Amino acid sequence: MKRLNWGLIGGGEGSQIGLAHRIGAELDGKFQLAAGALDIDPERSRDFGTRLGIDSERAYGSWQEMLSGELARRDRVDLLTVATPSATHFEITKAFLENGFHVLCEKPITMNPQEARQIVELAKRQNRICAVNYGYSGYPLVRQMRAAVKQGDLGKIRVVHAEFAGGFFADAADADNPRVRWRFDREQAGVSAVIADAGIHALHMACFVTGQEVRTLSADLATCVEGRGLEDDALIAFRMTAGTVGRLWTSGLAIGRAHGLTLQVFGEKGGFRWEQEHPNQLYWTPLGQPTQILERGAAGLSVEAERASRVTVGHAEGMPLAFANIYRDLGDVIQAEKAGQTPDPLATEYPTAEDGYQSIATVFAAVESAQQGSKWVEV
Amino acid sequence: MKRLNWGLIGGGEGSQIGLAHRIGAELDGKFQLAAGALDIDPERSRDFGTRLGIDSERAYGSWQEMLSGELARRDRVDLLTVATPSATHFEITKAFLENGFHVLCEKPITMNPQEARQIVELAKRQNRICAVNYGYSGYPLVRQMRAAVKQGDLGKIRVVHAEFAGGFFADAADADNPRVRWRFDREQAGVSAVIADAGIHALHMACFVTGQEVRTLSADLATCVEGRGLEDDALIAFRMTAGTVGRLWTSGLAIGRAHGLTLQVFGEKGGFRWEQEHPNQLYWTPLGQPTQILERGAAGLSVEAERASRVTVGHAEGMPLAFANIYRDLGDVIQAEKAGQTPDPLATEYPTAEDGYQSIATVFAAVESAQQGSKWVEV
Amino acid sequence: MKRLNWGLIGGGEGSQIGLAHRIGAELDGKFQLAAGALDIDPERSRDFGTRLGIDSERAYGSWQEMLSGELARRDRVDLLTVATPSATHFEITKAFLENGFHVLCEKPITMNPQEARQIVELAKRQNRICAVNYGYSGYPLVRQMRAAVKQGDLGKIRVVHAEFAGGFFADAADADNPRVRWRFDREQAGVSAVIADAGIHALHMACFVTGQEVRTLSADLATCVEGRGLEDDALIAFRMTAGTVGRLWTSGLAIGRAHGLTLQVFGEKGGFRWEQEHPNQLYWTPLGQPTQILERGAAGLSVEAERASRVTVGHAEGMPLAFANIYRDLGDVIQAEKAGQTPDPLATEYPTAEDGYQSIATVFAAVESAQQGSKWVEV
Amino acid sequence: MKRLNWGLIGGGEGSQIGLAHRIGAELDGKFQLAAGALDIDPERSRDFGTRLGIDSERAYGSWQEMLSGELARRDRVDLLTVATPSATHFEITKAFLENGFHVLCEKPITMNPQEARQIVELAKRQNRICAVNYGYSGYPLVRQMRAAVKQGDLGKIRVVHAEFAGGFFADAADADNPRVRWRFDREQAGVSAVIADAGIHALHMACFVTGQEVRTLSADLATCVEGRGLEDDALIAFRMTAGTVGRLWTSGLAIGRAHGLTLQVFGEKGGFRWEQEHPNQLYWTPLGQPTQILERGAAGLSVEAERASRVTVGHAEGMPLAFANIYRDLGDVIQAEKAGQTPDPLATEYPTAEDGYQSIATVFAAVESAQQGSKWVEV
Repeated sequence: MKRLNWGLIGGGEGSQIGLAHRIGAELDGKFQLAAGALDIDPERSRDFGTRLGIDSERAYGSWQEMLSGELARRDRVDLLTVATPSATHFEITKAFLENGFHVLCEKPITMNPQEARQIVELAKRQNRICAVNYGYSGYPLVRQMRAAVKQGDLGKIRVVHAEFAGGFFADAADADNPRVRWRFDREQAGVSAVIADAGIHALHMACFVTGQEVRTLSADLATCVEGRGLEDDALIAFRMTAGTVGRLWTSGLAIGRAHGLTLQVFGEKGGFRWEQEHPNQLYWTPLGQPTQILERGAAGLSVEAERASRVTVGHAEGMPLAFANIYRDLGDVIQAEKAGQTPDPLATEYPTAEDGYQSIATVFAAVESAQQGSKWVEV
Repeated sequence: MKRLNWGLIGGGEGSQIGLAHRIGAELDGKFQLAAGALDIDPERSRDFGTRLGIDSERAYGSWQEMLSGELARRDRVDLLTVATPSATHFEITKAFLENGFHVLCEKPITMNPQEARQIVELAKRQNRICAVNYGYSGYPLVRQMRAAVKQGDLGKIRVVHAEFAGGFFADAADADNPRVRWRFDREQAGVSAVIADAGIHALHMACFVTGQEVRTLSADLATCVEGRGLEDDALIAFRMTAGTVGRLWTSGLAIGRAHGLTLQVFGEKGGFRWEQEHPNQLYWTPLGQPTQILERGAAGLSVEAERASRVTVGHAEGMPLAFANIYRDLGDVIQAEKAGQTPDPLATEYPTAEDGYQSIATVFAAVESAQQGSKWVEV
Repeated sequence: MKRLNWGLIGGGEGSQIGLAHRIGAELDGKFQLAAGALDIDPERSRDFGTRLGIDSERAYGSWQEMLSGELARRDRVDLLTVATPSATHFEITKAFLENGFHVLCEKPITMNPQEARQIVELAKRQNRICAVNYGYSGYPLVRQMRAAVKQGDLGKIRVVHAEFAGGFFADAADADNPRVRWRFDREQAGVSAVIADAGIHALHMACFVTGQEVRTLSADLATCVEGRGLEDDALIAFRMTAGTVGRLWTSGLAIGRAHGLTLQVFGEKGGFRWEQEHPNQLYWTPLGQPTQILERGAAGLSVEAERASRVTVGHAEGMPLAFANIYRDLGDVIQAEKAGQTPDPLATEYPTAEDGYQSIATVFAAVESAQQGSKWVEV
Repeated sequence: MKRLNWGLIGGGEGSQIGLAHRIGAELDGKFQLAAGALDIDPERSRDFGTRLGIDSERAYGSWQEMLSGELARRDRVDLLTVATPSATHFEITKAFLENGFHVLCEKPITMNPQEARQIVELAKRQNRICAVNYGYSGYPLVRQMRAAVKQGDLGKIRVVHAEFAGGFFADAADADNPRVRWRFDREQAGVSAVIADAGIHALHMACFVTGQEVRTLSADLATCVEGRGLEDDALIAFRMTAGTVGRLWTSGLAIGRAHGLTLQVFGEKGGFRWEQEHPNQLYWTPLGQPTQILERGAAGLSVEAERASRVTVGHAEGMPLAFANIYRDLGDVIQAEKAGQTPDPLATEYPTAEDGYQSIATVFAAVESAQQGSKWVEV
């Protein structure tokens, strides 16, 4: 089957997230990198694009150039990924959606809920895909949890506990490190640092797995390292649409936790525990019975988990394959659209602009609550 | 050395906590069970006491009987443990302190802060020991954390994260199980269920290890299982006396977590993680370096941890030895007193009525905060 | 119930194994330390005994003194523990058995199979208990494995894999450390170092859990640290009485494994994995199903495991309680004998001289095999 | 940079290993699947090839057709992967090498050492790459171990312990399952089942990490499931070229171990432990110090490990990325050759025909030893 044309904005040389997107997009052979505006510097942008194998006329110097260049082509990109700094997501995503492109935007979709709402409505009006890269939702065992919750294996969900705590902002000496500094600068980072960067993934996971949204919350934000303008640790209590009680802790000060994204879901009939650092095992405890270790790739998992699983049980799969699952879903849906067919419903689980809106609205609500002494506010 | 005489109130036949106290007290050969009022039923009380090897005249039918009986003896008990239902702790502890006995009381020391304050003052006035059995503080690696914090290994402590989540109250069918039902009945359990039962241990651990107290807090209490009069899940944000930010989650709904008591401490220079279910390992991460697994019993630990450690590295020690450490400390202090000597300062780390007061005051503050929409309140 | 009188030979001040025995014997209140010959130095022996609370006339200066002293008493010790250097086990055990005492001997029961056979027959003739302290057999989940194998949960046992590897002999600088040096000196240690010290426990576990004995074996012994007269690493392939295939690795060079005693049992219908360093969890995988984590103390375990379990699920129990289980079994059997009753069959699972014989015979066979180029030999 | 042309033989629809190779080869954008003979059935072969996006004239019906087809082209494949049943590896690899292609062959390279030796010499004579896919050697932390051993961090290596035990052949009911049956049929599988299938990886790992070869060995092979013509469990003691003592256990009966490939390396100065099921952590214990958890992607690892690492620390990488590392190395070397440059030495760590020869020779020696009562034999 012919590969779809894929375009990438941002993700220049040395960018980790750019590499992860390229691996994710290419891994299944569904997409080929056909066009790119990879760097804020036009020359570096064109040079790196060419070195990645993009035809020179499609190795653009800027996203504006890329937009007009692609619009002029019949083989224009089938999907456009936005992996630029957060503050530019809105503008770029909006411009491409308005011109009829499918977009996958890095999180956060925008810097505030108002813009996110515009994107949601624009995508609906244009009937274009606007996906948001909550990449952890591509993990097979995350999809297993979602499927099990959906089919009632846990009964009513009582409590969801989400955590994203790492030591990424723990070094006070990083005050001069540009990769850290901008996070705590309100000008560049907006209203939140660690929630907007890390906690937002945990929030999305809580929603994705329970199939609910955050309705109300009470938050406490703390800034422990001197000189920072935004929070480096936060705790949020929340309630979800179907009544589930939520608990979220996120921190950048948790020295020793490399990438501590963890989800626990507790229903009437059983509980789940999943840790991103060991994504190939899911701990499932039916009420009153021993805990079981569900292995990715093992027999007996849901079709959703099986679909997202590539290699045999006992081998590890990691983050690049989770990303690849998002891309494969998008590829399937886009190919179906091009063929005038209905896409496989299993391919439509990728996070959307609506999820992006919910998340950023929750971040804003958390900031508002914290400012008012942890008062409960609506999202 | 002659064994000290030990008395036990409560902890009747089949009682888990009674067994744990008996093992803890006898394990080092410092105490012998000399007197007891073990059951609310006088006959069963005397019978079980005799079967445990207590002389028949000291196998009492009630604590009142025991108080007068022991007062009449020259070889009266050197330490009295109160392991009765929570609502009776105040009355019994008070009576024995007033009559000059050293007391070790199960947690919670009383049902409210006012009574706890009375006990604190009474113990001071009487110059008697009133210890409270926060038994987890007896674990060698918990003492290692406390010692390391004290000597500055972590620098300023930024965040402490304490968790006590298990599935112990997850079965809705337990509504008729008397061991569960009373917990959610305000008449018997007071103002709180899961915080007062489980979370209180995690709170004490946070204080014990950081050497601080909880100053202010914001709490969210949730009751997820229908028909319960008290909370079965809670989240608390707090601030401590030296400015440390605190996070606490406690739940009885966490199916799959057998006994999920966990402490994480994050300072400027490193982080700790310790889990009660695997108490012989402590994860220590110096800033910017790999995580180290500190094994109980290994060379290089603090004198506090070494003192609390019995068997060689690689063997497991468990909860009974943690209890035994509390008893050994008490035994050392009492023996020193009897000998007119100053006790080893290392023996004085056991939790006291003051700790008991702080904990119950924190529980009350959490309930007050939750009733006022998670408003921040002082402890 | 009155405590049984217990005597200890060896286990002087600072001895780890002596402390473990004292905790194990006293923990349940079944035994009290009534007599002892604790040190090779008579004065230190008497002094330490007195300090442990032994009456001065029973704080003996030597085991010979103790034997005649106790024989002269009506309240002579009900059980005698031998915790002296290995080379003296035979002589002391023999003397006490001949004089009608029940004996619990540290492993190895003797320095060679011929002597072990004599002990077995002597104990039988005298109708006295001669137990051997393979203390790991006291762990509740080890007894769970044994019970499950016995009742056929695994079907025919195909393979047993036992491992005892640690870094205890890894430091070449220990050549002058007397606690290490004697292990590699044929005069003091006999024919084997690491098998006789560590591997022997793993061998016993393999037999205890499968209910079989080692019939034939092929062994490879290696001495990696220069200057040692005996092996510091060994690998043994074996076959058991009911046809089970055995694999054993033992090493003193395994830096990073604190106390790596592990047992895996694989039958037609399922597999077990248990690790001594985390003794409160047993991994059980029924054929074709997810692995289950069986927690000590949880509902649904065998009566054998329940009996050996003290504190509630989720709390850790450790090595001292495993030892205590051996002592409690012995106490139950001795009390039944004194009362003229049949002991509880569940109390008779402690390892005996016969087990001690089998183990030492296996060690000798391994040495013989290794000397003949790993030739298969009979045990 | 232009992609290299890649050809695949075998790995038809539904083949797990075929999928893993495709992901591995395409992931970095170095290779594109340009030609294939993917199935033994010519029609299915062509059909599946086309569906994978291969031009129809290069979607061949057989490897013979592919060989002549590619020879006739100027843009012939730059690398040819052989992923057919083991018995055909020799013939196909030989044919392509003889015609000047670079080959990556699945393991085992051939069915016996004689043929493997021919391949080694043929590749040398032709000056072509003949790599063998011991894919686990592509894991970053495996390369970290190798690099650390090489630069002397562990001192002299005393013992290497390799294990590959899983439950893959545990179900006796699989006697009729063709995916299992052929493994135990001497006609199809040759002299060995579980060593040749699983243990061979562990053997290669032991050699790869220590930089040594197996010199002599003593083996015990067991067949536990009735009706099988070859071993389903094996234990091997060995000695390596620089004197390291080796231990290997491999089993297909180990129910509960999904994919139990584990390596432990013990030197004078420290020890390593690595488990394939959690490949992103390496346990490193310097003599006399606490164990450290080295995380893939963390600062301070060797250049070899850094090169093999793609995503940031704390994210998981899995088996597909290990495969991709082998492919990237091959791609780098082939590109350098095409450009007339010397390849980066770091790119030359992939396993070669020589490794393939060593492994299969070791398997044969193990079988010979077992047949002679575990006699020590030379490899």
